[in-house]
Amino acid sequence: MSINRLQSTLDYQFKQEELLKQALTHRSFCRGANNERLEFLGDSVLSLVISHNIYEQQPNASEGDLSRIRASLVNEAALARVARDINLGDYVLLGGGELKSGGFRRESILSDTMEAILGAIYLDSNFTQVQNSILYLYRVYLQNLPSQSNLKDPKTRLQEYLQSEKIDIPEYAVVKIIGKSHDQTFTLTCRILSLNIETSGIGSSRKKAEQDAAIKALKVLKK
Amino acid sequence: MSINRLQSTLDYQFKQEELLKQALTHRSFCRGANNERLEFLGDSVLSLVISHNIYEQQPNASEGDLSRIRASLVNEAALARVARDINLGDYVLLGGGELKSGGFRRESILSDTMEAILGAIYLDSNFTQVQNSILYLYRVYLQNLPSQSNLKDPKTRLQEYLQSEKIDIPEYAVVKIIGKSHDQTFTLTCRILSLNIETSGIGSSRKKAEQDAAIKALKVLKK
Repeated sequence: MSINRLQSTLDYQFKQEELLKQALTHRSFCRGANNERLEFLGDSVLSLVISHNIYEQQPNASEGDLSRIRASLVNEAALARVARDINLGDYVLLGGGELKSGGFRRESILSDTMEAILGAIYLDSNFTQVQNSILYLYRVYLQNLPSQSNLKDPKTRLQEYLQSEKIDIPEYAVVKIIGKSHDQTFTLTCRILSLNIETSGIGSSRKKAEQDAAIKALKVLKK
Repeated sequence: MSINRLQSTLDYQFKQEELLKQALTHRSFCRGANNERLEFLGDSVLSLVISHNIYEQQPNASEGDLSRIRASLVNEAALARVARDINLGDYVLLGGGELKSGGFRRESILSDTMEAILGAIYLDSNFTQVQNSILYLYRVYLQNLPSQSNLKDPKTRLQEYLQSEKIDIPEYAVVKIIGKSHDQTFTLTCRILSLNIETSGIGSSRKKAEQDAAIKALKVLKK
């Protein structure tokens, strides 16, 4: 795909096109300069632009709320979504192995390349320009920030819901642990005694199994 | 302490002095606006400025090296050092309890307040200005970046040293685990068979005990 088409999709014309090419170059492609250093820079660029935007948009959100909202916008899945919006997979330069295995569709590669492009725009221009580019790429997502309650983990949501209803918090109890130390499966129960609700959860850690059981308890409560 | 004196130390005059006051206000001081949201913003500001500087200074460093160098400059201890350089503890606004217990000397409070001040300068001016302020505050530390080998953990350093000398890598073996699952103490040994070196390490996790034993082995090797 032509690099000019990508520049028009990005609504940014590089002065140093080699920076864009480097941003598109996965380490599997060649032994020379790849996009990993630009990704390092782009990660910080994105974090500041998103932090500033949600700081202004959410004047009453706590530091913890802001951190959760930011995380939902800059994590691998969110960045891969932005990358797919501009068909970035069509432009990524991959080595043979990665090409064959469909690396251009992999979230980690799309997300890393997206960050590298932001780093490249910043280096090619300045902070104000890359800020404009990010606000443009993220326009849909920044207009539809996730609600704060959706960002909390299920166990916290369950606990807060029960507290708001003046119901005792749930009890979690491990039922079974299978496997050796580095490959365990936990099974546990979540009991809300006063409502006579009991759900079970499974996961590769105690914490994950608790979240699983809490999700199920929330479903029961919503019925 | 007068806020004007702090502004002259910072070499920055606030247009909105209330932003500086908010940055100095620990949550223990009052129920109103404290510095936590500014700290959220300042953390990202600092990360980008430092990332950009070391990206330029270290053209051959890998992404991993850059991440380790950045971490050494933006962690709590490093930020508290910068805060002490400008006597920030004299200006922090703390509640009664924190005041009595010497909160103005605590690294976490100094570090958080430092980040909040950077967030406040950014909001009061723009990215270029806060970049200048950070490069000024960090001038000594950015001129003396830690060497890449010093940033690696002791176990890695030991292994790389032995490999460079074509000596077999060390063997770690757990000798003793005391305590229950959430409060354990590990004792283990690190043996370099061909050199007849054996050291022991103690720590609250296997990993920490290994690092402890590796530090001791490095000391023996340097003799």
